[in-house]
Amino acid sequence: MILHLRKNVSARDKKDLLRRLALRGVQVHYSPGSDEAILAAIGDRKAIEEENLEAHPAVARVLPLDTSFKLASREFRPERAEVRVGDLAFGGKRIHVMAGPCSVENREDLLALARELKEGGASVLRGGAFKPRTSPYSFQGLGEEGLRILAEARAETGLLVVTEVMDTRDVELVCRYADIVQVGARNVQNFALLKEVGRTRKPVLLKRGMMTTINEYLMSAEYVMSGGNYDVILCERGIRSFDSATRNMMDLASVPLIHHWSHLPIIVDPSHGTGHWRWVSPLALAGVAAGADGLMVEVHARPEKAYSDGDQSLLPERFRNLMSDLRKIAAVVGRTLA
Amino acid sequence: MILHLRKNVSARDKKDLLRRLALRGVQVHYSPGSDEAILAAIGDRKAIEEENLEAHPAVARVLPLDTSFKLASREFRPERAEVRVGDLAFGGKRIHVMAGPCSVENREDLLALARELKEGGASVLRGGAFKPRTSPYSFQGLGEEGLRILAEARAETGLLVVTEVMDTRDVELVCRYADIVQVGARNVQNFALLKEVGRTRKPVLLKRGMMTTINEYLMSAEYVMSGGNYDVILCERGIRSFDSATRNMMDLASVPLIHHWSHLPIIVDPSHGTGHWRWVSPLALAGVAAGADGLMVEVHARPEKAYSDGDQSLLPERFRNLMSDLRKIAAVVGRTLA
Amino acid sequence: MILHLRKNVSARDKKDLLRRLALRGVQVHYSPGSDEAILAAIGDRKAIEEENLEAHPAVARVLPLDTSFKLASREFRPERAEVRVGDLAFGGKRIHVMAGPCSVENREDLLALARELKEGGASVLRGGAFKPRTSPYSFQGLGEEGLRILAEARAETGLLVVTEVMDTRDVELVCRYADIVQVGARNVQNFALLKEVGRTRKPVLLKRGMMTTINEYLMSAEYVMSGGNYDVILCERGIRSFDSATRNMMDLASVPLIHHWSHLPIIVDPSHGTGHWRWVSPLALAGVAAGADGLMVEVHARPEKAYSDGDQSLLPERFRNLMSDLRKIAAVVGRTLA
Amino acid sequence: MILHLRKNVSARDKKDLLRRLALRGVQVHYSPGSDEAILAAIGDRKAIEEENLEAHPAVARVLPLDTSFKLASREFRPERAEVRVGDLAFGGKRIHVMAGPCSVENREDLLALARELKEGGASVLRGGAFKPRTSPYSFQGLGEEGLRILAEARAETGLLVVTEVMDTRDVELVCRYADIVQVGARNVQNFALLKEVGRTRKPVLLKRGMMTTINEYLMSAEYVMSGGNYDVILCERGIRSFDSATRNMMDLASVPLIHHWSHLPIIVDPSHGTGHWRWVSPLALAGVAAGADGLMVEVHARPEKAYSDGDQSLLPERFRNLMSDLRKIAAVVGRTLA
Repeated sequence: MILHLRKNVSARDKKDLLRRLALRGVQVHYSPGSDEAILAAIGDRKAIEEENLEAHPAVARVLPLDTSFKLASREFRPERAEVRVGDLAFGGKRIHVMAGPCSVENREDLLALARELKEGGASVLRGGAFKPRTSPYSFQGLGEEGLRILAEARAETGLLVVTEVMDTRDVELVCRYADIVQVGARNVQNFALLKEVGRTRKPVLLKRGMMTTINEYLMSAEYVMSGGNYDVILCERGIRSFDSATRNMMDLASVPLIHHWSHLPIIVDPSHGTGHWRWVSPLALAGVAAGADGLMVEVHARPEKAYSDGDQSLLPERFRNLMSDLRKIAAVVGRTLA
Repeated sequence: MILHLRKNVSARDKKDLLRRLALRGVQVHYSPGSDEAILAAIGDRKAIEEENLEAHPAVARVLPLDTSFKLASREFRPERAEVRVGDLAFGGKRIHVMAGPCSVENREDLLALARELKEGGASVLRGGAFKPRTSPYSFQGLGEEGLRILAEARAETGLLVVTEVMDTRDVELVCRYADIVQVGARNVQNFALLKEVGRTRKPVLLKRGMMTTINEYLMSAEYVMSGGNYDVILCERGIRSFDSATRNMMDLASVPLIHHWSHLPIIVDPSHGTGHWRWVSPLALAGVAAGADGLMVEVHARPEKAYSDGDQSLLPERFRNLMSDLRKIAAVVGRTLA
Repeated sequence: MILHLRKNVSARDKKDLLRRLALRGVQVHYSPGSDEAILAAIGDRKAIEEENLEAHPAVARVLPLDTSFKLASREFRPERAEVRVGDLAFGGKRIHVMAGPCSVENREDLLALARELKEGGASVLRGGAFKPRTSPYSFQGLGEEGLRILAEARAETGLLVVTEVMDTRDVELVCRYADIVQVGARNVQNFALLKEVGRTRKPVLLKRGMMTTINEYLMSAEYVMSGGNYDVILCERGIRSFDSATRNMMDLASVPLIHHWSHLPIIVDPSHGTGHWRWVSPLALAGVAAGADGLMVEVHARPEKAYSDGDQSLLPERFRNLMSDLRKIAAVVGRTLA
Repeated sequence: MILHLRKNVSARDKKDLLRRLALRGVQVHYSPGSDEAILAAIGDRKAIEEENLEAHPAVARVLPLDTSFKLASREFRPERAEVRVGDLAFGGKRIHVMAGPCSVENREDLLALARELKEGGASVLRGGAFKPRTSPYSFQGLGEEGLRILAEARAETGLLVVTEVMDTRDVELVCRYADIVQVGARNVQNFALLKEVGRTRKPVLLKRGMMTTINEYLMSAEYVMSGGNYDVILCERGIRSFDSATRNMMDLASVPLIHHWSHLPIIVDPSHGTGHWRWVSPLALAGVAAGADGLMVEVHARPEKAYSDGDQSLLPERFRNLMSDLRKIAAVVGRTLA
């Protein structure tokens, strides 16, 4: 249930309202975009209704929620959220590009690539230290050593760092190094992990799963937000289809749909979304044309030597060309690129 | 098998080559883009190999085909095809927009809408006279009366006409009225119909089916082309997925993939691709950003009264706004809009 | 709308009812299982409602239809239909097996195989004379010559014949030879073809499409039935999924679902449903355990030489073993095998 | 790489072989079905090849693996595995039924139901103490309290207990109470969790994910096994499709496919597989007819009051009827039911 408070609500009335909700065992969240004028009351619907909140002096309007997600909904936060990470804001006029290799492979290559990406216009450096691999015998990532290398690249280039966490026990460790902590597609309904990152106050990049409906996806965001961490960035990275011509099938309609139903920002990842560098640039342009708030793209200086996902990695020069086209598309849809 | 002929091949050598192929029961197609210098020899592979064509004086090079589609392949026609319809060329620098109602409903409304679309910048008028409907009790279209109304709209506005054919027995009739004959998504593997339109010399708009892989889709184009009708325009209109948030799921990666594998032009239909007018414009822009050669979009002056597909129809003013944005996106990717 | 007539309705009252419906432009169908006591009135709902049929002396009960299919629904025909073909009844206690090669390849092989199948316990001989092939360059079937061979096999063995029709122009021809005319998976929404077979009085085997929901599937059956041909046999043959481990994915829940929603019989085709002979027998047993009214299975004496679908064809001896197991499973679920 | 050792290999030769593999950093697993005569050598393929193992006196045969899964493959363990849990063996002649409510709701109801299930013929009691729910606001399970109730039901009835674990941090806790620890569909590629249960020696019930190919599924089993825990029971519980007529779509072909490629036992869960009690029994019978090694089925005494998944729960009397039919189907396919 969403409550709009009266404009000049007194401190006493507000306190009384909160006390009543607390006695009913109701969880209260303030809409961050609203200067505490809108709040979500989450709990047993019947108990809330018995309280007859319409009549309470602090309450201007009571809105029942017709979506299953609450904190992620536009009812809770009518304006688009800006998720702030360092100096950046995701979801505003400016779109941001996250780029980097699939995995952190070694210090030298990562530092060299990070410098190129910074020059090329990227804002955030991506790179996996803990890698979800279909086979237990594939390269599983460098672990904390990888995190250290990412932090060094940040120190040197000023790029922010996004990297994946796969285990509830690693959340604290990853948060120590990363600016944005990523929950990958395979963990989109790993509810224990969602709750754990929801307990932190670190921005979360939550990737859509291969089989996740948009409603389920927003429910997964809701898991993070219900822990009090509202800084969720969504990412369309392709869903699974019957056609093996591409690795996944990008659902670009998810961009306007999520903007319509939710205030959360959404970026697109055409590298995983298509699985081959050749289709990455056209789909990146398409994603921004459809309204995406940013881009995640894999770049590697020697894709043929990459430990993972070499096929879908752009060469640095292709990345620079993409950034140049992206700038023009962004302008057409009223956005700018850093 | 693809044969590149020698530059200065003599008439006698060429005649000998064709005679040999004919004796082997081999079907010969000339690449329309090549001034008869490239030809596809289609027939029993072993029989062709026995002929030892590499040694023939007319032949410069023999290329085995590693795709299952032949006439639709880049091997047969290395440059992108331009499919000419009246004054228009699909697949060239200029992109074209097909617009109109889902069904032709009556004369007055169609003529009024056609005038608006012409002013708005459309090149081709769409409208169904024979309608494929899931239920036998839904409006099935006006039939020939609908075709006549379309022809009248063309006469008045100069717009070309595209309309669907569903029955082999109606191909001749529809071809009499239409400039482009459409084979719909549900008939993408109606091989009898594909063969029948392949016997005409009318440009064909072949829509992708809800469950058609890109390879199967190009094989369906091959059915039309193997009848000698090379003027096929493809159309991505969304495939079926597990998520009911949109009517279909647009696979925009199909645009660069088809351009890579085939010389055929491909347009996108975000009306069927999303099922709701709200998502049509973002996906239309995305499609052109991804490289589409044109657009098909449903427009209706009173969508709430439409006999079919009202939800996904743009109002005329929204259509004009879309055209204006489209023009700018087109420019970024090196195209122009009529 | 479904009307239950009064038990002792007078001829005059009934005539009056039908006249009123006719004046409203309403189509009337009698439930074949009900001795004309139940009828479906199909037409403009509002017009029907204005007639106030509840008050009519011929009418005992008016049921609004809450399904989109009407003649295929249990409301129209509460008991399971038995579709009679020659001496056989599909949908009764006895289950029937259709078997044969994918394509009719030549007279000698077909006659020899037909004899083996008859001995093995099959009731119906399958074999394609018109073949839907993804590639225009693959074997397209023997056409009428194939139909003649099938008829000869029937004459010799007593097996009934089922074979596919792909073109509205061939319906009459195929009906001349076949006992059951098949509409294939790719034509499940070829509405022109459905209407054409609906005009005949030949039993129709309607295969489910690769991406057809059960509701859409029953709507396709409705197309046939709305032409007055109620003899439709459904066939689950696998839908398309994301996993290429099998050719298609059999949806065996469709069997009890269709029995719950519709009176129509449904058989299963594990040959197309799995794409490999190794999985055919387990899935055939599973289908009958789930309640299927019969089986369609591909058998070939030399699968490695088959013109099409050799991989999924059983050898005749494997077919005999399957029939023996099938008999026992049928008994457990209260059915018998011819 | 799979190594078959010589029949009368000397202790010295064997020791030498293992030393050489260890020096190459190769992981060694013994096939549990083979009395240490077959072993899998997993590591850098090139390093292994350099060792020239064919010539080693301990080695009879070297088999390269053409599957991506190794320990789960038939090459590693040619005979079907029997996974022993208490007195039961999954994968042998006898099939076993796991039954119970979706969630453990309270002590009294669970104990009462457990007694009924024991009498009805179940071998294992299922019930969730940690529940994966799409919404953070839905009932999340009783946690350790639920585990205690399950243990009490075991003590009273002799039923073994299977229950789900969702967090690496809970694995030890759940293993203390459960006889079989379940990894749910949403965690099928939660690799951290798979590794953690692979470190235990507790039998694991690994459910197939909604979009997991059979190859990926066996790779997930491989994650568990590569930790040295070979006791994996697979479970087909339906995949996601485009049709919402059922909650999921059961892929029964997975049963014979997995038996062909792997030695691991596989059971079926028609409750999640269909989502409605009405389809549970037909699909349960179908699963056993297709060769499943057991069944998991939800049962609830008052489904309309269930905290979760009431629609798909059988009433106890329907469960008893199912068991009776199951016994007969099992006999037809050469199995028995406890």
